[in-house]
Amino acid sequence: MADPRAVEALKAALRRLPGVGPKSAQRMAFHLLERDRDGARQIGEAIVAALCKVNHCRRCNNFSEAETCAICASAKRDAARLCIVETPADLEAIEQAGVYQGMYFVLMGHLSPLDDIGPAQLGIDRLLALAKADPIGEIILATNLTTEGQATADFIIDLVQPSGILVTRLARGMPMGGELEYMDPGTLNQAFSERREVESHSAAARADN
Amino acid sequence: MADPRAVEALKAALRRLPGVGPKSAQRMAFHLLERDRDGARQIGEAIVAALCKVNHCRRCNNFSEAETCAICASAKRDAARLCIVETPADLEAIEQAGVYQGMYFVLMGHLSPLDDIGPAQLGIDRLLALAKADPIGEIILATNLTTEGQATADFIIDLVQPSGILVTRLARGMPMGGELEYMDPGTLNQAFSERREVESHSAAARADN
Repeated sequence: MADPRAVEALKAALRRLPGVGPKSAQRMAFHLLERDRDGARQIGEAIVAALCKVNHCRRCNNFSEAETCAICASAKRDAARLCIVETPADLEAIEQAGVYQGMYFVLMGHLSPLDDIGPAQLGIDRLLALAKADPIGEIILATNLTTEGQATADFIIDLVQPSGILVTRLARGMPMGGELEYMDPGTLNQAFSERREVESHSAAARADN
Repeated sequence: MADPRAVEALKAALRRLPGVGPKSAQRMAFHLLERDRDGARQIGEAIVAALCKVNHCRRCNNFSEAETCAICASAKRDAARLCIVETPADLEAIEQAGVYQGMYFVLMGHLSPLDDIGPAQLGIDRLLALAKADPIGEIILATNLTTEGQATADFIIDLVQPSGILVTRLARGMPMGGELEYMDPGTLNQAFSERREVESHSAAARADN
């Protein structure tokens, strides 16, 4: 009531950001108007620019300014491997790790019937078309190990396996630096049931050469 | 690297919001571009509108679209009382409680030398001019009970008291609904040292009539 209408409108708008409640929105609006009008201008301009420039890569569905993103356009990537991730942030994490040189498909979410996100919203049909058209030898499922991520992976497996393409998923077990004492039962279960035989050190050394 | 430039620019811009780190900014950018482009548009427009419309009330320094805000312009408010608060949110909280009908002065912060916020940034000179020019009989200090809020209050007290105006501050003690077991030592200290004599119930009942 006491705040002018434009401030109320700004607070209401900021609440549309994920994880921002009324108190945070108030704090943000105050900060922008009182301490950082330059920052406010920058946010406004970045939103407008992103809305008008950013679209989806025609091939992998990731955000892209061009019709085809840099990864899909690169001749250096291995076109025979397709890694399926939920979000651009997941793709980014894999790229940062530097272990993978193949292509991606970004679902931009996971199956979530309550939020009206079904196979159509995730572009599963485009994924299947891609898997058929391209000379893809392996599909690597890299969805999150959450209930939703695993349900999404299971859904894709059922659709892809009949075509005979090799479908793999990331290994599950103890994370690097993990301490048994603090590990959840689910992880320990996985780590036990998928335990691997230890190679003899001399054999490993020979394999390295 | 993998994200297009406009997405990176959006993430960088969102990090200027208080309390938003790289992970939150990434989540927000993804949400705006993938799930809520309408919301993004709304935020962009609200920021532009607020930046161009919102200024400070000439009298109380609160945010205002008009030269004088609704409270300062109201004939119903008691012009003899001036309540000093740190932020518009504090003012709002007092208005919500509905206990106060006087005027306000909003400092828009507290003294914070490390952030280059001194008396000039808080408009202390305007506050003093206001206290002298208007027929003000009481100045109520309602800054936060944090170190910075109290330092700010002490600073104002030193400047205002010589003029002979009655200066008061909000009562300190146990909050309503507070449980002793969970109260911090500072609050318990205040509550003990400022304890009040209990009125006899019959006397209170008589005073109510």
